[in-house]
Amino acid sequence: MRKILVIGIGAGDPDHLTVQAVKALNTVDVFFVLDKGEVKQELVDLRQEILTRHVTRPYRVLEGRDPDRDRTAGDYVGAVDDWRRRRADVFASLLESLGADEVGAFLVWGDPSLYDSTLHILEDLLARGVPFEHSVIPGITSVAALTARHRVNLNQVGKPVQITTGRRLAAGWPSDVDDVAVMLDAHCAFADVPPDTYVYWGAYLGMPDEILISGRVGDVAAEIVRVRAEARERKGWIMDTYLLRRS
Amino acid sequence: MRKILVIGIGAGDPDHLTVQAVKALNTVDVFFVLDKGEVKQELVDLRQEILTRHVTRPYRVLEGRDPDRDRTAGDYVGAVDDWRRRRADVFASLLESLGADEVGAFLVWGDPSLYDSTLHILEDLLARGVPFEHSVIPGITSVAALTARHRVNLNQVGKPVQITTGRRLAAGWPSDVDDVAVMLDAHCAFADVPPDTYVYWGAYLGMPDEILISGRVGDVAAEIVRVRAEARERKGWIMDTYLLRRS
Ligand SMILES: C[S@@+](CC[C@H](N)C(=O)[O-])C[C@H]1O[C@@H](n2cnc3c(N)ncnc32)[C@H](O)[C@@H]1O
Ligand SMILES: C[S@@+](CC[C@H](N)C(=O)[O-])C[C@H]1O[C@@H](n2cnc3c(N)ncnc32)[C@H](O)[C@@H]1O
Repeated sequence: MRKILVIGIGAGDPDHLTVQAVKALNTVDVFFVLDKGEVKQELVDLRQEILTRHVTRPYRVLEGRDPDRDRTAGDYVGAVDDWRRRRADVFASLLESLGADEVGAFLVWGDPSLYDSTLHILEDLLARGVPFEHSVIPGITSVAALTARHRVNLNQVGKPVQITTGRRLAAGWPSDVDDVAVMLDAHCAFADVPPDTYVYWGAYLGMPDEILISGRVGDVAAEIVRVRAEARERKGWIMDTYLLRRS
Repeated sequence: MRKILVIGIGAGDPDHLTVQAVKALNTVDVFFVLDKGEVKQELVDLRQEILTRHVTRPYRVLEGRDPDRDRTAGDYVGAVDDWRRRRADVFASLLESLGADEVGAFLVWGDPSLYDSTLHILEDLLARGVPFEHSVIPGITSVAALTARHRVNLNQVGKPVQITTGRRLAAGWPSDVDDVAVMLDAHCAFADVPPDTYVYWGAYLGMPDEILISGRVGDVAAEIVRVRAEARERKGWIMDTYLLRRS
């Protein structure tokens, strides 16, 4: 039976890889790389560095083109369904090149369970009847990388924490929690939370260009917005995440 | 300056250690071990195995006794304050044995940011004026170990997820989220959520005795309660965590 590994590779530092991930990488025959059109060369290089540094046996790399979603379609549900179908088509054709007893792998930034669609696509393929086994190797999330660099806890003692998206935060502070970790925020939603909220912000975590800023939102929001825009302009892309702690 | 490392060692599998953690372990002169009275020999052995397997230079191990909290005290805040003070006393005396340029380390199960008090204690010590530098090495959380073993996402597409305690869940389903990861639950709070909720449960994750059960709460809650009680009886202790997904 063909085997697929979904391997969490951490937030950006090649040393975030676990011993389990390194061992798994060294069982892989084919690495599948599914990239969006305008992928950042720096991230491609980083992923390549991880393979170069940690893999000691021969392997093949197979690239596919991650189809775009039609974000202008009136029929939202239909557009998402269509997109999932096209993604599954691309995955299915990548899988065809995997020999009967070979091991294929997808590398996922951070942990595969957090805001990543690889597992959904594999489920879609299984639902189609495409035969393979799969396992998942957990990884260091960008949230764990963030709290480690700021040396803070994610949650307060005995209290809950929510992990959410910038889009959701922009719609209002979630109920029932004082601590909120935010990912996928292109619009600096932190700038609109109460000024006494504490923010721990990090960009390019684990990478050479890592930036950390923390403080009261009222004191540091403008600085984060400025630093973020400058970094994004300079490098052409940004990945950032932050923890908000309500006072 | 004395240096303290707080190192996340993953949920139980020695292979959960990151390359960064392995490198950090090999800079340590003194490992501080702070145990509660009735610590499980199996966990002590596992921690020792991690050192034996990954550390290639000489080190000292220094043990302290983690003070108990007075849970019967009428004055809750006073009792917690008093306990934190006593813990900081124990830490401070452990630190005294660290030479001026030496590196000390605390090993933390999972990730140091999630329901762990090591960082709070270090902050209390800094607030007292005890001089040291510290850094944090992120680790694989038991939540990431859980979702990997069940091969599921922690969150649904674009949606938030809450991480909370069994005690909080018992007080009611949190607002604004359909997905809830639960830790520190000694009382099987999952048994009281709506029967159509899906539960992904795991005990002793990453360890030889790992147990996984998933399904509709209505179908599997009784089984989890029984298997959990049997395992706890047999081994004398249990660590379990679960993800609830509202349908
Ligand atoms: C599609 S999600 C993937 C998350 C990933 N699976 C994880 O476990 O961290 C991408 C988001 O993760 C966050 N992120 C990932 N890597 C990051 C890094 N190195 N520094 C800061 N944020 C990062 C950003 O919020 C980004 O928008
Ligand atoms: C004090 S908290 C520490 C959590 C840890 N810092 C982490 O990142 O996972 C202990 C709780 O973590 C969960 N836990 C830790 N290790 C586990 C394991 N190997 N299997 C299942 N649950 C675990 C259980 O819910 C347990 O009650």
